[in-house]
Parts: sequence; structure tokens; C-alpha cells
Amino acid sequence: MEKQFTETQRFYVEPKITLVGAGPGDPDLISVKGVKALKSADVIIYDALVDEALLNYAPKEATRVYVGNPSGDENFSQATVNQLMVDYALNFGHVVRLKGGDLFVFGRGYEELDYAASYSIETAIVPGISSAISVPGIQGIPVTHKGDSDSLWILSGTDSAGNLNKEIANAALSKATVVVLLGFEQLAHIVNMYKNIGKGRLPVAVIQNGSMKNEKIAVGLVNTIEEVVIEVGIDNTGPVLLVFGQTVALHNKFCSILSFLEEK
Amino acid sequence: MEKQFTETQRFYVEPKITLVGAGPGDPDLISVKGVKALKSADVIIYDALVDEALLNYAPKEATRVYVGNPSGDENFSQATVNQLMVDYALNFGHVVRLKGGDLFVFGRGYEELDYAASYSIETAIVPGISSAISVPGIQGIPVTHKGDSDSLWILSGTDSAGNLNKEIANAALSKATVVVLLGFEQLAHIVNMYKNIGKGRLPVAVIQNGSMKNEKIAVGLVNTIEEVVIEVGIDNTGPVLLVFGQTVALHNKFCSILSFLEEK
Repeated sequence: MEKQFTETQRFYVEPKITLVGAGPGDPDLISVKGVKALKSADVIIYDALVDEALLNYAPKEATRVYVGNPSGDENFSQATVNQLMVDYALNFGHVVRLKGGDLFVFGRGYEELDYAASYSIETAIVPGISSAISVPGIQGIPVTHKGDSDSLWILSGTDSAGNLNKEIANAALSKATVVVLLGFEQLAHIVNMYKNIGKGRLPVAVIQNGSMKNEKIAVGLVNTIEEVVIEVGIDNTGPVLLVFGQTVALHNKFCSILSFLEEK
Repeated sequence: MEKQFTETQRFYVEPKITLVGAGPGDPDLISVKGVKALKSADVIIYDALVDEALLNYAPKEATRVYVGNPSGDENFSQATVNQLMVDYALNFGHVVRLKGGDLFVFGRGYEELDYAASYSIETAIVPGISSAISVPGIQGIPVTHKGDSDSLWILSGTDSAGNLNKEIANAALSKATVVVLLGFEQLAHIVNMYKNIGKGRLPVAVIQNGSMKNEKIAVGLVNTIEEVVIEVGIDNTGPVLLVFGQTVALHNKFCSILSFLEEK
């Protein structure tokens, strides 16, 4: 049910925008602070990656606005989302902008904050659990582990211009655990980068729909991961994350995958 | 009040260990899933970095065990914590191991999982909001931002052996936003690394007690940050995080800090 704007309302509205990170997918991975923000929302503007169960925390009379995935190929551009956010805040009060994952790990959260600030609208930030760290973690793959990895490099598969992120070549050379978000389409390219520097036997995991009921994981080596991905049936119908690094070998599927490969 | 072990109890206990990340400090930044785990805890084993308000979610009769900071210089070694965790689970049932930040970003979570597995105790993982991403985010510093940074490299200030993490030199050369945890003691060394490669004018933030009431932030350039840290009064009495990268310039204190520096 859409609210109707009336002249009277405008005088009583205190515009505010709260950016809330909803976490990697499991609706119970939102923070208590995020739930409190939803409970005081007049309007919720939410992404494709957000579980709609979270909308139940908001008052019944709050307006729910679905904006798909602004960074994907859906209808709502980032500019449209920014404008909706501001228009709803000015007319209805407290807008909660609910986003999948965290706000600032390729989440374009700053663009939204900046746009709100250009209208002098008060903003608040409620960080979310980033999939880059939590999705491997839930699978028992630690992004850092004493002796195996003293650092973690998180990259997007493509750069701002939409091309393969060239920084991945540097990441591959480092000793960091490398997590690539939005990189499934680039898997073959990235695998080749690792092969070309002699890291064909480095452990790799590819995880689709992390933390959700339809989660899938492929575990293998750089040399074999593309085959395992096909075996497991991972595709681009949900968020996919790549993890390259020695700590992937700690996953409980790793040994059996290796035996499977040796049998062939 | 400590529970007493009785022979009868042993037959009714189902040992389970749930590792829960409590988030960066603000107790409202724990996840709903973390709260649910606490509500079903028989025992909570918690860190120095955890806000004790979180213990109130647990049943009154649950045993609370404080273990300080195993990676710090306090009394409880990691081996002791591992053993306590297992002993409590075997004798009392559901142990919630509540840890500051996330579990796997220098959190030694895997060591605890592995130890529990060696006793065939069932484990569950509830990720937390990592301070590496959320603490800059709450301050309005996005760890990635279109055009400024396509990646994020998270490192510890020291390596497993306790020496300056040499990988920071590589991180400094990259285009990634660099976040250093547990690195305050190494600030002078790291600043020199950046100066030596001609990055003296790169923006830097140093944040102490992020997300908490006693939060402090210093914003400056590589060339000036040590001075600003003293000005602001940041010290090592709480967790401190360093952020090196162009996105730090988006912080609202950045301009005024620059004018301050130019005045001098």
C-alpha cells in the first residue's frame, strides 16, 4: 500500500536516511542495530540480495520499495535509487536503505551517503557482515590462519570500467588469501593468471549463495577448479565468491576432492 | 556462580560449541543469530574485547567465563581457552565462544574449531561484523569506492612470529585500500614504508575503540599522521586500526585537517 503525500505531512516529516547492511543472505545475520533501524522505518528501499523476511521487522504501514540490483543489469540505476531515497526521506521521514552484504565492500554505499548529504539529510550507518569474510568462514575456511595467511585481499572481479580487475594479477603474486567478489564471469581469466605464475596447485573455493539454503561450494586446486565448478553445478544465478589461498585446504571437502582428482 | 559437575549430568549433556563473532564493540552490532546462540547457552566463554552487556542475552543460570585476550599478554593462553571450551562443552552442554570482531580475521577461530573437532564435538559458526571494514565505514570512510579503490587489503601489523608483517611493504605498493589491525605499535615503521616509496601525501586514518563511546579518530597524510595521533590522544589502551588509502580523503575531517596542517 503506497502512502499518499499530503501538504500537511511535509511540515511534520524529519527526513533521515539509515544505510543498513543486511549481511550475506541468511536473514539472521543482520545486526540487532539493523533490526532496530527497520523497526523505526517509514520507508524501506531494498536490494535484490536482501531476504524479504527482513521486511517483517518494519511497521506494517511502512512503505516497501524494491530496487533490484543497481550494480547489475536490472532497471534501477544507482542515480534512480539515490533520488528515490531522498524523495522518500523528504516526504515520509525515516528511510532505511537495506543493502545485501556490507555497505562499502563494492556496495556503493558512499555514493548514497554523498547524495543524501548533498540535500543536507541526516544519515546513519549500520554496517553489515561482509560476505567476503563470512561466506568462507561459515564453510570453515578461515580467511586468515596462523602460519598459512597473515593477510586477506578482497577484490572485485571487474574494475570501475567493467573490465577484468588488473589488480588481481598483483593479488595472485602476494601471500594474501585472495577473495574475489563479482568475479564468476572472470573465473577462467583469473585461473589463467594463477597458472601463469606457477600456482596451479594452490587451493581454491568457489561458493554460490553463501549462508543461504541453496548454498553450493566447489573446492579444488587452481588446475582443477573449473571442472569442479561444473561438477557441483555452480552458475551465475546468485552471488558467487572466489577464494584463492592455502587456508582453503582446511575445508573438510578438500581431502576427498583431491582423492577424487587422483582417481581420474 | 559456578555450576557443579555431577555424574548424573554427564549422561544428559549434548556437547556443542558455537563460535560467535560479537562485532567491533558496539553491543548492538552482534547478529540476530549470535543473540539466538547466546539465549541457548549453558556456558559463555568471552574475550576482553566483548561488551559485557551481551552476556545479558544468556539465561541467568548460564556460566560466564572471562578469558581476557588470548592473543595479548594476559593470563589465558590459546591452549587454555581451547581446553576450557572443550571441558565446559563435555560437562555442561552448549558452549558459546564469544569473540570480538569476526572469528577469522586474525581471530584464531580456526584453531578453536580444529580443537573442538579433535574431540568430535559438534561446532557451529556465527560470523561477526569485522572491525576492518565496519570501523572505517561507521566513520564514513568507505573501504572501496568507485574510482578511488577497487580492492581492500587487510593485514595484521605483526606476522605469526610477532615481527613487523613484511607483506605490508607489498600492500603499500598496491592500489588497494590498506587496513592494518593490531598495528599501532608498528605505526612509525609503516609510515616510513610509505614515505620511502614516495607516498607521503597518501591520506591515512587511525581509529581507536571504533564503534564504541570512547572512539577516537586521527585523519591526516602519511607525512603528518603521527603528529595528528598525538594531537588527538590516541594510545594503545583499546583496539586501534590503521587505514591507508585515497578513500580516507572522503572523511569529513579531512579538509579541516589539511587546513590545520597548512596553517602551521
